[in-house]
Amino acid sequence: MEDIKLKNIKVTDKFWSRYMKIVKEDMIPFQWKVLNDEANIIIERERNDKSIPAEKSHAVENFKIAAGLKKGHHYGYVFQDSDVYKWLEAVAYALTTGEDKKLEKTADEVINLIEMAQEDDGYLDTYFTIDAKERKFKRLLESHELYCAGHFIEASVAYYEATGKDKVLKIACKLADCIDRNFGREEGKIHGYDGHEEIEIGLTKLYLVTKEERYLKLGRYFITERGKDSGFLRKQLEEDKNKQPILIGMNNFEAEYFQAHKPIVKQETAEGHAVRFVYMCTALAEVARLTGTKEMYNACKVLWDSVTKKRMYVTGGIGSTVMGERFTFDYDLPNDTMYCETCASVGLVFFAHNMLKNEPKGIFGDVLERSLYNSCISGMSLDGKHFFYVNPLEVDPKASERDPGKSHVKVKRPAWFGCACCPPNLARTLTSIGKYIYTKDEETIYTHLYISNESSMNLKGEEIIVKQETDYPWKGNVNITVDGKDKEFTIALRIPNWCNKYDIKVNEEAVKYDVLDGYAYISRKWEDSDKVNLNLLMEVQEIKANPYVKDDFGKVAIQRGPIVYCLEQEDNGKDLHLIKLPKNVQYKCEFDSELLLGVVKIKARGEKFIVKDDWGESLYSSDDNEDLYEEKVLTFIPYYSWANRNDGEMRVWIKKA
Amino acid sequence: MEDIKLKNIKVTDKFWSRYMKIVKEDMIPFQWKVLNDEANIIIERERNDKSIPAEKSHAVENFKIAAGLKKGHHYGYVFQDSDVYKWLEAVAYALTTGEDKKLEKTADEVINLIEMAQEDDGYLDTYFTIDAKERKFKRLLESHELYCAGHFIEASVAYYEATGKDKVLKIACKLADCIDRNFGREEGKIHGYDGHEEIEIGLTKLYLVTKEERYLKLGRYFITERGKDSGFLRKQLEEDKNKQPILIGMNNFEAEYFQAHKPIVKQETAEGHAVRFVYMCTALAEVARLTGTKEMYNACKVLWDSVTKKRMYVTGGIGSTVMGERFTFDYDLPNDTMYCETCASVGLVFFAHNMLKNEPKGIFGDVLERSLYNSCISGMSLDGKHFFYVNPLEVDPKASERDPGKSHVKVKRPAWFGCACCPPNLARTLTSIGKYIYTKDEETIYTHLYISNESSMNLKGEEIIVKQETDYPWKGNVNITVDGKDKEFTIALRIPNWCNKYDIKVNEEAVKYDVLDGYAYISRKWEDSDKVNLNLLMEVQEIKANPYVKDDFGKVAIQRGPIVYCLEQEDNGKDLHLIKLPKNVQYKCEFDSELLLGVVKIKARGEKFIVKDDWGESLYSSDDNEDLYEEKVLTFIPYYSWANRNDGEMRVWIKKA
Repeated sequence: MEDIKLKNIKVTDKFWSRYMKIVKEDMIPFQWKVLNDEANIIIERERNDKSIPAEKSHAVENFKIAAGLKKGHHYGYVFQDSDVYKWLEAVAYALTTGEDKKLEKTADEVINLIEMAQEDDGYLDTYFTIDAKERKFKRLLESHELYCAGHFIEASVAYYEATGKDKVLKIACKLADCIDRNFGREEGKIHGYDGHEEIEIGLTKLYLVTKEERYLKLGRYFITERGKDSGFLRKQLEEDKNKQPILIGMNNFEAEYFQAHKPIVKQETAEGHAVRFVYMCTALAEVARLTGTKEMYNACKVLWDSVTKKRMYVTGGIGSTVMGERFTFDYDLPNDTMYCETCASVGLVFFAHNMLKNEPKGIFGDVLERSLYNSCISGMSLDGKHFFYVNPLEVDPKASERDPGKSHVKVKRPAWFGCACCPPNLARTLTSIGKYIYTKDEETIYTHLYISNESSMNLKGEEIIVKQETDYPWKGNVNITVDGKDKEFTIALRIPNWCNKYDIKVNEEAVKYDVLDGYAYISRKWEDSDKVNLNLLMEVQEIKANPYVKDDFGKVAIQRGPIVYCLEQEDNGKDLHLIKLPKNVQYKCEFDSELLLGVVKIKARGEKFIVKDDWGESLYSSDDNEDLYEEKVLTFIPYYSWANRNDGEMRVWIKKA
Repeated sequence: MEDIKLKNIKVTDKFWSRYMKIVKEDMIPFQWKVLNDEANIIIERERNDKSIPAEKSHAVENFKIAAGLKKGHHYGYVFQDSDVYKWLEAVAYALTTGEDKKLEKTADEVINLIEMAQEDDGYLDTYFTIDAKERKFKRLLESHELYCAGHFIEASVAYYEATGKDKVLKIACKLADCIDRNFGREEGKIHGYDGHEEIEIGLTKLYLVTKEERYLKLGRYFITERGKDSGFLRKQLEEDKNKQPILIGMNNFEAEYFQAHKPIVKQETAEGHAVRFVYMCTALAEVARLTGTKEMYNACKVLWDSVTKKRMYVTGGIGSTVMGERFTFDYDLPNDTMYCETCASVGLVFFAHNMLKNEPKGIFGDVLERSLYNSCISGMSLDGKHFFYVNPLEVDPKASERDPGKSHVKVKRPAWFGCACCPPNLARTLTSIGKYIYTKDEETIYTHLYISNESSMNLKGEEIIVKQETDYPWKGNVNITVDGKDKEFTIALRIPNWCNKYDIKVNEEAVKYDVLDGYAYISRKWEDSDKVNLNLLMEVQEIKANPYVKDDFGKVAIQRGPIVYCLEQEDNGKDLHLIKLPKNVQYKCEFDSELLLGVVKIKARGEKFIVKDDWGESLYSSDDNEDLYEEKVLTFIPYYSWANRNDGEMRVWIKKA
């Protein structure tokens, strides 16, 4: 099973094109200004931690210093370089959607700068080159050296594929070779791994584009080495004579935080830092596929189940606590203290995508869709200029202001963060959204997402043109035109798990199809302009969580199609905890083109608890008055679109009678 | 209005005598071993913070070093001395319950040691004397110097009153004089205050026993100075040329944490560190009374209302978050992440007691009782050897283990803590429990608590003997025998706010009485052996919280008399969140002498949600199956007695149909 090359997919979708346009026209230029300290904005800290450098980015400046063009010291996080790499990756994807000479020139200049910053032996990391040459690869628990390298390699592959220019790929290979010389089973090499997974993803991509087996082998090495010696990361720190930390606070974390508590293939639960975990799984799934290692793929499935069946929010968010931005335990999904980092949802999309390349199963596609339409894009404001790190399911502005345990739960998306991982991560995902629509093998084109596009893909030696037209996610009707060149092959359509009733026609006639693991398989000889119509019934659903999810017990979340909804104070007044949905609610859906740039809003008759005057100033009472509720028309809006109007309360899980 | 001297009150109560006995016979000797590093126990950290010194106490050793008897450095918290002082105070109270020559000798030796550790000018603080002479009074934000002094003064007054020996009082006066020379409005003195209120309490007590007006004036000064310059604490740190902190982490807190954000009399809400807040209020109420300052008493009432009507748990616990162990905002009372420090509840008892000395009002007595019978004594195991800092209202052992945001919520009481404030604070409160039973003015004896005792109190020049007999808190029947000496006076009986029906008889006959502000006033000429019988109907009550308390909405807490109940896994199985109480529950109460050293347990027919098999591994589902519940007999135990059997879940607030 393989991807379709991004440049062969032209997204024409109303919903996603807008995002892609903002990213290309606003976010990428804006981010460029930030990276060059030219954006006149306040950069926010993710937390109230003053040890975090947030005054400026300095990311490009660091490269200039490392390149010898300027004098000075490195500034910012030790992983500041990755901001530039993620920007470059987003640029690369954006360039596949249409020429932009100016942008391409800027990118070429950055690549030149990166080349100059690279050391002769291929080593590339401005922090160490500028200020800590003697500490290279000595403090992998905190250094993020291979993490940054992984991001550069991902960017270089993307840029090479978008432009055909191979300079960037040469830098990447030189870097990968440097890492290969330093890490591995062989004597004299470091038997270890980075504290933050990412290099493994980069290496699989580099292998795919260069076909150089060494890179796959090295990626596989990092996967198998991880957790073999669970004490590696800490021991390395202890062996370093220079005790000065590179990243403050990292030292407190145990091996589990880094997914290094046992060999990956022995891990059975999603543990530690959520982003690290999904990056690890993304690479694991790809290495499993590329090397055909069954043990690895089995581990993927076990970890997939752990994260998606026990530890994932209904929005596709992951990471139940801010402390360590990590997983906690099964069914622990608090709605107002969680982390649900945008990057973690993005990573879950990567993981799902790579699982789909192993096996086309609805469980992977469903999560991919859930995460993308909810917890990923909630990370960005509708204007594309403000971003959430943390994507809560329940917000009370008073709590965010006054409860230090919720100070990470922002009510408003800030413009930029000191640790700028999430916005560029979103940028690269949104510009490459096309990549997630299809996969194919020799016989079959799999359609995982319903997004209008025009694509060409090689099947049995022919270029097959596939065109999708849909008003998804607002309508469940999907028209697919296949230019089938009279070839016999299969088109597999994902039937989303939220859909209880659907209908498939080819050229307006019912057809035979098989349904397996969430996909409907239509096999036939496809002629030119064959039309497939998939009609998914999009009903409003009341979603219940497993009763062991304490925080959602007795509540429902409203979902329609792939979109999870929420109540906002703006539409429903405050004290949302006093609202409940009675039995047998009638939901009314209406597309409102004026609301939040056009969304289907859902209205329902709910009930709101009447706080009687006799409560007055009392805090507790033993009076057993009957509870009284008043009818209240509720307006639900898509979760991703919350916090785009006035500050106020929000909640996804609503009490249900 | 005034206290009755503790030595004139002989507590004969079944419930409390047990506590007093354990404190005297087990806890005080045990604590002495800890203070001398002779207890063979593991001292726990309150948090997972490795910066906290917890390996040993070293408290007595610090005094030996400061006294010049040994060589070495100070070890432990900067406020380690206060552990010794609180121990001494508990010893003093314990000695009023009966002679103990050995204990008294140990105390005398400690006093000698303290005298030797005191500097010539009266300064007393081992940390500074040993290791930081030049930093005295220069870093009050973190130094706790006046806090420790306050504790010593409290202990000295208690010891003097218990034994009549005035050596300790002389040390205290010398210390107070030293502080008086260093702090005040006059030029050349420090215009400031301690980061942790406590000296103010000590000074009011020292004034009461010495009648030296200077001490009251100094106490009043600290009250009025606080918050006048809200930047004082921080400025002092900035002015210190030596930037080395004395207590790591304190620096991050803003003025509000220290109740220094505005002058105390202008403060309208309970803010900042909860223990600091109640200590401040305790002193404020006493200074208001002793100086007759109306503005101060009005401030007390405003702050009383803020804390008890908006920010107090049903158990009498306070402090809604572990981060800063502090208040957050109105109606924010999360049950599983809160702090509810034992010391804060003890402080709330002090505050209530001093409010009662200003004005006999039920609202004060009710909170005093609530806090004492619930959140205070839950701080101690039934064996008196294990202690909670944090008194949660909802516990899941998995969360305590796996969620770093709940790691402070212990499932088991540890033996001792590195920061040992709570156990000795409880010890001194329990040994002086008699002090809280009565107050009196010229005309009236007020009975605030129902605790069996035999006391004598001077009224109109006569020693009146009052004897209470009761099986409180299990039974609401109270017999009071008054040896009235034919005097006309009033006995005021508090009618607890939990009591909806009561009955008062004198010599077995109905009498006339007036009820005002929660007290029943019986005025008459009292003869020898007059018998007052108060019969309070003790029913099981379902307590609701104000609907704005989000975390308790739709739930009830079970209370009977002053005792708040809870469900424990031990009696009710796990997944307590699946349990609800139907409408019209019949509660059955039964005294079980075998259970938890004898408690009234409450049984009720509840319902438990049936988790259907079809959930299987699903995390979310849109199936709209009817919710099914099975009947389940629930056993409620007193909240204070939880965590005395096997580890497991616990919750106070139970869902109510």
